[in-house]
Amino acid sequence: MDDANVISALADALGESQVIVDEAAQAQWLTDWRGRYRGQALAVVFPQNTGEVAAAVRICAQAGVAMVPQGGNTGLCGGATPTGEQRSVVINLSHMKRVLAVDTANDTLTVEAGCTLATVQQVAADNGRLFPLSLASEGSCEVGGNLSTNAGGVQVLRYGNMRELVLGVEVVLSDGRIWDGLRALRKDNTGYDLKQLFIGAEGTLGIVTAMVLKLFPAPRARATAWVAVPGPAAAVALLRAVQGACGDRVTAFEIVGREALELVLRHIPDTRAPFGQVGEWAVLLELSDTGEGEALDALLEAALADGFETGLVEDAVIASSVAQARALWALRENISEAQRLEGVSIKHDIAVPVSRVGEFLERAGRALCERWPDTRIVAFGHIGDGNLHYNLSKADALANRDFIERTPEINRVVHDLVDALGGSISAEHGLGQLKREEITRYRSVVELEMMRALKRTFDPQGLMNPGKVV
Amino acid sequence: MDDANVISALADALGESQVIVDEAAQAQWLTDWRGRYRGQALAVVFPQNTGEVAAAVRICAQAGVAMVPQGGNTGLCGGATPTGEQRSVVINLSHMKRVLAVDTANDTLTVEAGCTLATVQQVAADNGRLFPLSLASEGSCEVGGNLSTNAGGVQVLRYGNMRELVLGVEVVLSDGRIWDGLRALRKDNTGYDLKQLFIGAEGTLGIVTAMVLKLFPAPRARATAWVAVPGPAAAVALLRAVQGACGDRVTAFEIVGREALELVLRHIPDTRAPFGQVGEWAVLLELSDTGEGEALDALLEAALADGFETGLVEDAVIASSVAQARALWALRENISEAQRLEGVSIKHDIAVPVSRVGEFLERAGRALCERWPDTRIVAFGHIGDGNLHYNLSKADALANRDFIERTPEINRVVHDLVDALGGSISAEHGLGQLKREEITRYRSVVELEMMRALKRTFDPQGLMNPGKVV
Repeated sequence: MDDANVISALADALGESQVIVDEAAQAQWLTDWRGRYRGQALAVVFPQNTGEVAAAVRICAQAGVAMVPQGGNTGLCGGATPTGEQRSVVINLSHMKRVLAVDTANDTLTVEAGCTLATVQQVAADNGRLFPLSLASEGSCEVGGNLSTNAGGVQVLRYGNMRELVLGVEVVLSDGRIWDGLRALRKDNTGYDLKQLFIGAEGTLGIVTAMVLKLFPAPRARATAWVAVPGPAAAVALLRAVQGACGDRVTAFEIVGREALELVLRHIPDTRAPFGQVGEWAVLLELSDTGEGEALDALLEAALADGFETGLVEDAVIASSVAQARALWALRENISEAQRLEGVSIKHDIAVPVSRVGEFLERAGRALCERWPDTRIVAFGHIGDGNLHYNLSKADALANRDFIERTPEINRVVHDLVDALGGSISAEHGLGQLKREEITRYRSVVELEMMRALKRTFDPQGLMNPGKVV
Repeated sequence: MDDANVISALADALGESQVIVDEAAQAQWLTDWRGRYRGQALAVVFPQNTGEVAAAVRICAQAGVAMVPQGGNTGLCGGATPTGEQRSVVINLSHMKRVLAVDTANDTLTVEAGCTLATVQQVAADNGRLFPLSLASEGSCEVGGNLSTNAGGVQVLRYGNMRELVLGVEVVLSDGRIWDGLRALRKDNTGYDLKQLFIGAEGTLGIVTAMVLKLFPAPRARATAWVAVPGPAAAVALLRAVQGACGDRVTAFEIVGREALELVLRHIPDTRAPFGQVGEWAVLLELSDTGEGEALDALLEAALADGFETGLVEDAVIASSVAQARALWALRENISEAQRLEGVSIKHDIAVPVSRVGEFLERAGRALCERWPDTRIVAFGHIGDGNLHYNLSKADALANRDFIERTPEINRVVHDLVDALGGSISAEHGLGQLKREEITRYRSVVELEMMRALKRTFDPQGLMNPGKVV
């Protein structure tokens, strides 16, 4: 089939208005959110239901055209952008946003892949439940993308990644067949757990069209504190001490380095340092509970008092109102935006065992500053999961331009150390196009061969989101 | 290679004392725990480390001999017993029981597959942590088997199945290569999550030799209640109400039907009914917390008082001592043993969405008693996960013999209904040999083909635990 035939077959199957071929009209779906990748496509198509996704896949499979599944297009690794290396169709699922079922007795929600994360959170809340996945792009990212990238965020510590929140999936396979795996079961040991294949696969094995998600009891009370700590290792010790005292009530435990906080104070209006001065390291700690707020506040106070005694806490502020809690969270949530306003930086999304975060920060900082003096290290993130966002730049604009050009060398220093510590070079963002080559340095031959074998098995033509992951 | 050559090659690789060829000496490893399956083997071998497992696998793979991985041999579906249909070697991992690492700052434990579950629980406790998997055979089952069957148990409601408790695995693949996937990370989105393939695969894709397990804060307080409820649907409503009030503190929520309780009272010494009379349905409810016991007791009392008001609770006893809590748990934990003492029964391990447990029990009971009057239904289990053990027999021994012969017909009634309700015919025990044929009735062609494709990809010779799962 030539290009024109593919396009007309798609228009026949999906309706002409759902098939965008005009280059200018396609533009927003051919580049990623950060603007780092740009691709081309025969068409960007918007199926309205699973049958139409299957029809589009069959057409592409027969024509040998690559398929790029796309949701809210908020990914950070170019996973939803065509590579431009072969004929491609972008299959955007944003029109598939029906809530298919709400079952509060089963604590599940069944939704199409194109629902935004915020919609899912809202439906859960409207039904007196919590859907705990929460991340910066939640207003526009879609759960199909969350599932396909195994999204993380700030509450993984307590509720797990997206993988742990999914009970069932519906998938259009690479040949256009539909697998209905929309089971809503907490326990099902009847053979291989096939849904796991598609979670985190970034659309390279099939297109997820719907899913069953777990709901949780909605917390009624939250207690939030900003805590100055002597260092990252002390932060980890504090985490375990607070968990020992408060158990699952610990729903967030984020670390913020001095440079990160200073950027926020410099660039974001109406922010101020929780203490008079900005220390080297602080932790944003949140407890949640279905019980009442007073008891929770008392628990947090007691845990922090213990921390003072053991030397793990240097100073602490407990939010005394929802507004104060929001103000503390704003210091954490605006780091990325503040950094964007400051200028370009080299970003890393790494994980190491929680016990080795301190060692990572110490060794990485030393190695970088030896080779590139005056490196500005903006380190922050989900220390409770061992996941740091570790972003590097130079304060001087001209020096920074040279520095950015050294990205491959700098990545090598950071990633080699991550690997030496048993870590991961992509903790929550996935591989996409960005780290597809890089990962081959850090995974064994056996592991890479197993991945490629899976890819061949489920996508023998190599048409599902090629150029991503493997 | 003929049989003698295989045996001598194994003896060279593992040492003669680790290769059992004498038929009488082999016997205990050639039959399953229930005594339903019996197989044959060229040898039962006991590797001491991963390298020896790999050596044994290479010998078998070259000789075209089937391999049956085995742990504590406590499975209920014949998954660890050779089928006897082809030349086999049982590879028993019980000698591989080293604790490789304890990392309390990372809240992880790295252990070899031959550790018993009880050992792992104990090591966690010795380090002030909880490893939450808990099931009847924990003293003798091994974590390799727990992982390979994705074991469940009484705390899944709060902590998840074994799948949710595993961060990394080491696996010997079907060609004898070793995959070191022993990463101890909470977040790692670098391609396909290969460990998921081996969890719940019952040794049909490779042999798991070691794993990294998650630890949790150890609860300090528990509150336990036995609660008479109007019926299963009310039990589910009570579960959600108690979770709404108590959140994650709800760590167990088990249902016990009248027949189940009566069997325990009849056969198990020193048991007595929590209330004067035995009602139709009761719930065993447990809250746990890192906080103090008094607050937890008060919370449980308040939740049950609410339940009285809303009609979800008919009567309730809260254990006032550890001994009383143990006595209540004994009523639940002795059901299987009491049933064994009573005689043979047809057992089911099913799951449906939690919201449909009531409908399942009502419709299944009606359908069975219409066709087979006087069927005795012993129903109990993890209603919080929608998982019921649903065991059928007749009180009269002679009538029961005829009834047991009808097992295929009776399974059909139960399993068809489970399937109609979107359920699973094996919630936590796996497929093994027992349900390998049965499952093909209830899974789509697409799904079965995907499973077979996985099997072909990772075990192209079909030598890894053949005759199980797929």
